[in-house]
Amino acid sequence: MYIPTLDDMKAARERIAPHIHRTPVLTSRMLNELTGAELFFKCENLQKAGAFKARGASNAVFGLTDAQAARGVATHSSGNHGTCLSYAAGQRGIPCTVVMPRTAPQAKKDAVRGYGARVVECEPSTSSREAVFAEVVAETGAEFVHPYNDPRVIAGQGTCSAEMIEQIEDLDAVIAPIGGGGMVSGTCLTLSNLAPKVKIYAAEPAQADDAMRSFKAGHIIADDAPKTVADGLLVPLKELTWHFVQRHVTDILTASDPEIVEAMKLIWKRMKIVMEPSSAVPLATILKNRDIFAGKRVGVIITGGNVDLDKLPWNQGELQ
Amino acid sequence: MYIPTLDDMKAARERIAPHIHRTPVLTSRMLNELTGAELFFKCENLQKAGAFKARGASNAVFGLTDAQAARGVATHSSGNHGTCLSYAAGQRGIPCTVVMPRTAPQAKKDAVRGYGARVVECEPSTSSREAVFAEVVAETGAEFVHPYNDPRVIAGQGTCSAEMIEQIEDLDAVIAPIGGGGMVSGTCLTLSNLAPKVKIYAAEPAQADDAMRSFKAGHIIADDAPKTVADGLLVPLKELTWHFVQRHVTDILTASDPEIVEAMKLIWKRMKIVMEPSSAVPLATILKNRDIFAGKRVGVIITGGNVDLDKLPWNQGELQ
Repeated sequence: MYIPTLDDMKAARERIAPHIHRTPVLTSRMLNELTGAELFFKCENLQKAGAFKARGASNAVFGLTDAQAARGVATHSSGNHGTCLSYAAGQRGIPCTVVMPRTAPQAKKDAVRGYGARVVECEPSTSSREAVFAEVVAETGAEFVHPYNDPRVIAGQGTCSAEMIEQIEDLDAVIAPIGGGGMVSGTCLTLSNLAPKVKIYAAEPAQADDAMRSFKAGHIIADDAPKTVADGLLVPLKELTWHFVQRHVTDILTASDPEIVEAMKLIWKRMKIVMEPSSAVPLATILKNRDIFAGKRVGVIITGGNVDLDKLPWNQGELQ
Repeated sequence: MYIPTLDDMKAARERIAPHIHRTPVLTSRMLNELTGAELFFKCENLQKAGAFKARGASNAVFGLTDAQAARGVATHSSGNHGTCLSYAAGQRGIPCTVVMPRTAPQAKKDAVRGYGARVVECEPSTSSREAVFAEVVAETGAEFVHPYNDPRVIAGQGTCSAEMIEQIEDLDAVIAPIGGGGMVSGTCLTLSNLAPKVKIYAAEPAQADDAMRSFKAGHIIADDAPKTVADGLLVPLKELTWHFVQRHVTDILTASDPEIVEAMKLIWKRMKIVMEPSSAVPLATILKNRDIFAGKRVGVIITGGNVDLDKLPWNQGELQ
């Protein structure tokens, strides 16, 4: 297992600079008053293709040799990683195949195709996905870019917090949502080297709290098909992200689905930005852990903005 | 009638700097491809109190003498001007009264009160509003700050385009929504002096197109209770805004309500920002006037972000 280094992050930063936005940092006096903290929202919802995953995907794609690139890239994802890999491949002008469950929302398939990738459908089961994906790779020779358990992806995600410590002075803490742990691992990689005094928190939906339980247990725990409104955070930790999480994360905090939706609406209303339910989990946990964050300068990573405007969670009736 | 000058705008800029945001300019490759233009979105939805009107209101409030300020300010508004005047008065720590129709949405009354103003209700008619407002002024001696037909307000709104020409090089045109014409007049004031080659367009809902008809007729036409999804743009031009509009605006373009809603959704989806229907009118007109804007560098003013998230127009059934 190759562990990405600070040099890998620095190389990623140079490599992806032409293809990603240096995203803005927004603040809200009202949210500061509500939490007692000074919050700095790093807006990766305004990133290319609408999510931080454009960073890791671009690093993987632009790090390929010409021979590798000619065969293209492939992944399986029903979320932002597929869209962002499609975006990055389009930027380099190479083929991209994304294996998606037949049952994935049409809007998500359209988003992946919108940037030029081919979508290959599988049945909504792990066995079907693995079989179909193996066929794709056998047929194309494409390079597999895992959504998070990949050193190139983690080095790419680490460029986000490298920007943050340039944009925001004297941070006390950074908090990011955790699913598979790609963003949190990139944050650990960068901050443990460049700003080791900044505490790193991860925020997780209570209804998919496998990372929190892994953290407490000291080994990876993976849940079978958790269900939460924060649908970008369903996947479990893997070896590489576990390496970073167990070494550098101060704590993993959780919030319930209603708390997540309330925090999401608060950000939409007060900060006037469109973001996914997953991106609201950090604020939801800050609101219920005032003792940890009050008086602190806290960087909050808004991870993505790809939400179905026709199905906003506050229009979906009662949450479970 | 006092016509505000470039010096008034410059004085406003200095006066309000501590109380407003220098708002960011966002771009979208996809929207550029769709329109054939290079669009630069000036995000006044991210302004203090959620709208550009914080500029004019702050200029009026902070330009008062201490004796005037002690008696406070007052206005009638069921929209952003009331909220923003409340914000500005709160910043200076002086009383503010906003006369609002009894029938105005609770959320709007709450927003005005949220920044500290007193709300006085009237019946939803011009005669009741004027009678109640006269009582308020008689009782308090408060300074009336009109939502747009006021030189202090227009000078304040003019600071927005002063920022734009610093933030965006070589603009060919600027386009802003038009209701009463405060923002458009401020834009005329600033650009006619500092960047006279930049063409100024106004964008208006077809269902409330009194400014367009005034522009064509050569005199002010006021409609009786127009109805459109762009509910920030219902009011007519007045003498002071007409002065600027007739002299410096190149054209007033219109869009239908369904076109406005489509443009609004496009911006939410692609640019990940929350903005009002009124703010979508410029993009709606750009999309249908490709011949005017293609190949041009166009500044688009996103005027405000105070929208009811529980009543988004694409969830309201058929538009009229």
